[in-house]
Amino acid sequence: MKLSHYYAVIFSSTLKDVNEEYNLMAEKMDLLAKTMPGYLGFESARNADLKGISVSYWQTEQDILNWKNQSEHIIAQQFGKTNWYKNYQVKICRVEREYEFGE
Amino acid sequence: MKLSHYYAVIFSSTLKDVNEEYNLMAEKMDLLAKTMPGYLGFESARNADLKGISVSYWQTEQDILNWKNQSEHIIAQQFGKTNWYKNYQVKICRVEREYEFGE
Repeated sequence: MKLSHYYAVIFSSTLKDVNEEYNLMAEKMDLLAKTMPGYLGFESARNADLKGISVSYWQTEQDILNWKNQSEHIIAQQFGKTNWYKNYQVKICRVEREYEFGE
Repeated sequence: MKLSHYYAVIFSSTLKDVNEEYNLMAEKMDLLAKTMPGYLGFESARNADLKGISVSYWQTEQDILNWKNQSEHIIAQQFGKTNWYKNYQVKICRVEREYEFGE
């Protein structure tokens, strides 16, 4: 991820509850996202209290729109609104600079 | 957070282990960040396996630099490198657009 500029989608969410159906769909969407043009990476963390933050990384804003409009992903988003998410916030960001520490 | 543009700092980390000293310092830094000019908000999630994502939001890149160079925060960062973090990655991002769902 050492391009001059790339994009991050910060997805902050609160689940209604943890369920196996959600976990299976999340896993399926992770695999599907990896096949999309411009996909650079994904990371995720969730507290025991159902609050989570996921960040996906993409080469361009168009790549993000293409992923948002991917047909199987649209169905997953509908399930998410109806069944799984109490709420979520999405922020599309341009990564300006970065640094790191450790292994 | 409905400014035309603002900034996000994505802080992804892996702890060596969970300890009370770290939790106390994290709480102290949360309170201190809130007092800094340009602070807009903070959210955080951590898995049981010690992998976490925190995102703080700021009005300008200068606000982010000021927070990075705040004297008590510098000490906390040193403790973090020496004692608490196995690794971390920091990404400074400009928020381009956003949307949300639910309560």
